[in-house]
Amino acid sequence: VTATSARLLAAGAVDGERLVRHHRQLAQIGATPDGGVRREAFTDEDVRARELVIGWAAARGFAVESDPFANMFIRRAGQRPDLPPVVTGSHIDSQPAGGAFDGAYGVLAGWEALEAIDDAGIETTRSIELAIWTNEEGSRFQPTTMGSAVFAGALSLAEVFRASDAAGHTAGDALRQLLTRLDLAVRREFAFPMHAFVEAHIEQGPLLERAGKTIGAVHTIQGLRWFRIRVHGQTAHAGTTPAAERRDALMAAVSMVEGLSELMRDPSDVVRFTVGRFEVRPGSPNTIPEDVLFTVDFRHPDSAVLSALGDQVETVCRARAGRCEVAVEESLDAPPTVLDAQITQMVRDAGRDLGIELMDIDSGATHDAKYLAGLCPTAMIFIPCRNGVSHTPAEHAEPADMIAGARVLAAVVTELAIDVPNQ
Amino acid sequence: VTATSARLLAAGAVDGERLVRHHRQLAQIGATPDGGVRREAFTDEDVRARELVIGWAAARGFAVESDPFANMFIRRAGQRPDLPPVVTGSHIDSQPAGGAFDGAYGVLAGWEALEAIDDAGIETTRSIELAIWTNEEGSRFQPTTMGSAVFAGALSLAEVFRASDAAGHTAGDALRQLLTRLDLAVRREFAFPMHAFVEAHIEQGPLLERAGKTIGAVHTIQGLRWFRIRVHGQTAHAGTTPAAERRDALMAAVSMVEGLSELMRDPSDVVRFTVGRFEVRPGSPNTIPEDVLFTVDFRHPDSAVLSALGDQVETVCRARAGRCEVAVEESLDAPPTVLDAQITQMVRDAGRDLGIELMDIDSGATHDAKYLAGLCPTAMIFIPCRNGVSHTPAEHAEPADMIAGARVLAAVVTELAIDVPNQ
Repeated sequence: VTATSARLLAAGAVDGERLVRHHRQLAQIGATPDGGVRREAFTDEDVRARELVIGWAAARGFAVESDPFANMFIRRAGQRPDLPPVVTGSHIDSQPAGGAFDGAYGVLAGWEALEAIDDAGIETTRSIELAIWTNEEGSRFQPTTMGSAVFAGALSLAEVFRASDAAGHTAGDALRQLLTRLDLAVRREFAFPMHAFVEAHIEQGPLLERAGKTIGAVHTIQGLRWFRIRVHGQTAHAGTTPAAERRDALMAAVSMVEGLSELMRDPSDVVRFTVGRFEVRPGSPNTIPEDVLFTVDFRHPDSAVLSALGDQVETVCRARAGRCEVAVEESLDAPPTVLDAQITQMVRDAGRDLGIELMDIDSGATHDAKYLAGLCPTAMIFIPCRNGVSHTPAEHAEPADMIAGARVLAAVVTELAIDVPNQ
Repeated sequence: VTATSARLLAAGAVDGERLVRHHRQLAQIGATPDGGVRREAFTDEDVRARELVIGWAAARGFAVESDPFANMFIRRAGQRPDLPPVVTGSHIDSQPAGGAFDGAYGVLAGWEALEAIDDAGIETTRSIELAIWTNEEGSRFQPTTMGSAVFAGALSLAEVFRASDAAGHTAGDALRQLLTRLDLAVRREFAFPMHAFVEAHIEQGPLLERAGKTIGAVHTIQGLRWFRIRVHGQTAHAGTTPAAERRDALMAAVSMVEGLSELMRDPSDVVRFTVGRFEVRPGSPNTIPEDVLFTVDFRHPDSAVLSALGDQVETVCRARAGRCEVAVEESLDAPPTVLDAQITQMVRDAGRDLGIELMDIDSGATHDAKYLAGLCPTAMIFIPCRNGVSHTPAEHAEPADMIAGARVLAAVVTELAIDVPNQ
């Protein structure tokens, strides 16, 4: 078979009913009464979710291995096991009050691709592997995308082992416990050679749904800058202190947020600007606030815009401080990640050949693919989620969209695994 | 002696050194290492502070009685004990991290007036009494000015007995414990007839200090309206949700605060407008806020202004809600209290006669005098406090100002107690 016909065979072998059944099985692990999922990394639910997939792999005779951070790799061997594999996957952990699709969909679509290719009897040159990245959500142990960051060398194992939760337990201890229970073959090195990485995911935003499209070919994972802004004034009696003598940290902070909103105003609605934390002390109705801490989350796919606007955050805050003091700290500066153009074109081509409505899109959220993109050509495939909502029990994707995404994914990984030009 | 000469005799007999010594003694009860005072109502410190004053009274042979809420009355008997007495006083409890002057000064200046009048051998027609009002600060058991409110009938004893602290203990139990330890003669009825009430207090604001004046003749205790504003939006992902689709409770609340600031802008700087609480949920940097609760504390001495501006609070919030919902609840509406013009004129006259720099002033804070004003002609005498600061360990008043205030107070209560026209 040629790569072109093989990818259609693989897409055609996707079993939608099986995919939906697997999704329901996985969603039961950590299911909450409101229809959501609580399956945080390193918990009993994480162990049971991994065991479910390991059981499927065993039934197919696929090898399961892990790296030292329990990132798991399930391998359908190709004809040339010596060549770097084609890898797909996502994460299996959830937010504390999360949904059944974020991460889980990418793992299930990847698994379905492996089964479909296997069922279709396609012999690929390269091996195809399903990756399950550890602790993507970072809810108990920060940061997010911890497993892929360690894998890519952006964080050291020593660093993440020291990460501790609210109770003082470390990620290192949590990982050791997880490994005791799973009996994994810890055989993979971090950043082993890969031919390509493709991650399927729900969009976590409203653009596909609004446009009536089934698939998003992801161009860029937008960049992100985080700021922590501390405003310091002076506490005083609300009834007796004239406005002219106040050093009111809240009023200064409110003015800063207004100023930043003006700075970030964007008629094209691509800028993402959010003040998510805003904490006031002492927080008494009849006392003028002395301290405010607020955060700025600013994202954009274009690094020039990230620089131009982000670099003005401190200026705007200083200009609006009035009689208060202000300290602006940039706590995170992650540049945009432009995904691989060739694989993204394969996604478009597969969509076209399969008659699936598709559009180009940028990713507003961060994904494991961001770290993989530093190691090998990397792409992402998005499917819509209802009302653009995720990280809540209300998170939902339609079965038809899940199946379409799995078909495109199966097609693309097949094409990548068969075509070995000049090697 | 005439009332006019008696008031000068009384003022002249004020012993500044004794006043400052008493102040130091009282400040040691509940003293904190930072120079402040922690002497909350019903605590061991409250008991010991009361015992200190009771000891002074015993040494002078003055009777000490209380009402059922442990409001204490120390009596220097006049020639006509049947006539309603002239009462002065304030409170002896402090904020949890309070200063040594708020309340304490009014009690000590009142006591000094009694001693000065006694030392000068002045026989007054009416009795003069020093009142110590229970739980003015309301830090452990709300509301504030609890003792004077119960005394004046604004709250029932049953109501305040039910008030409970964070640990679930009730003010009723705390009061019973206090009464066990103090062995007071509980003989006074609430709202017994009084000829006049005069309260000395630190200003708790910067106006006297700024104007370089020693005494403030208080015209009005300004009115107060409190609002609780709840803004409800929708939580969503900071990276993926376009501005046009957001229902961002924080951005709506910030816009409301800006709108209210504009509404409350006052070139004459008499309006007091404070947002002291501003709470954001869920409060995560990368999540659009779903809920904000903020408070408005709005004060003014003129009830027409309180109505005109306060009645627009809800309108402004609604106009700025955008795609969010807003609920505005008025939690307190206390009209201004205009103090007695005749007694306030006596304060001015005494200042003039004693060569003390004096100005008219409004009270920004609430005081026990507010409830007394509903029962009898009532006035207040303010002295400056450093930087206008109170309710903190940094609270400070100069001895010279404390002494001047006690002289004016001694003069005024003497005049009130001697002059019995047409009775």
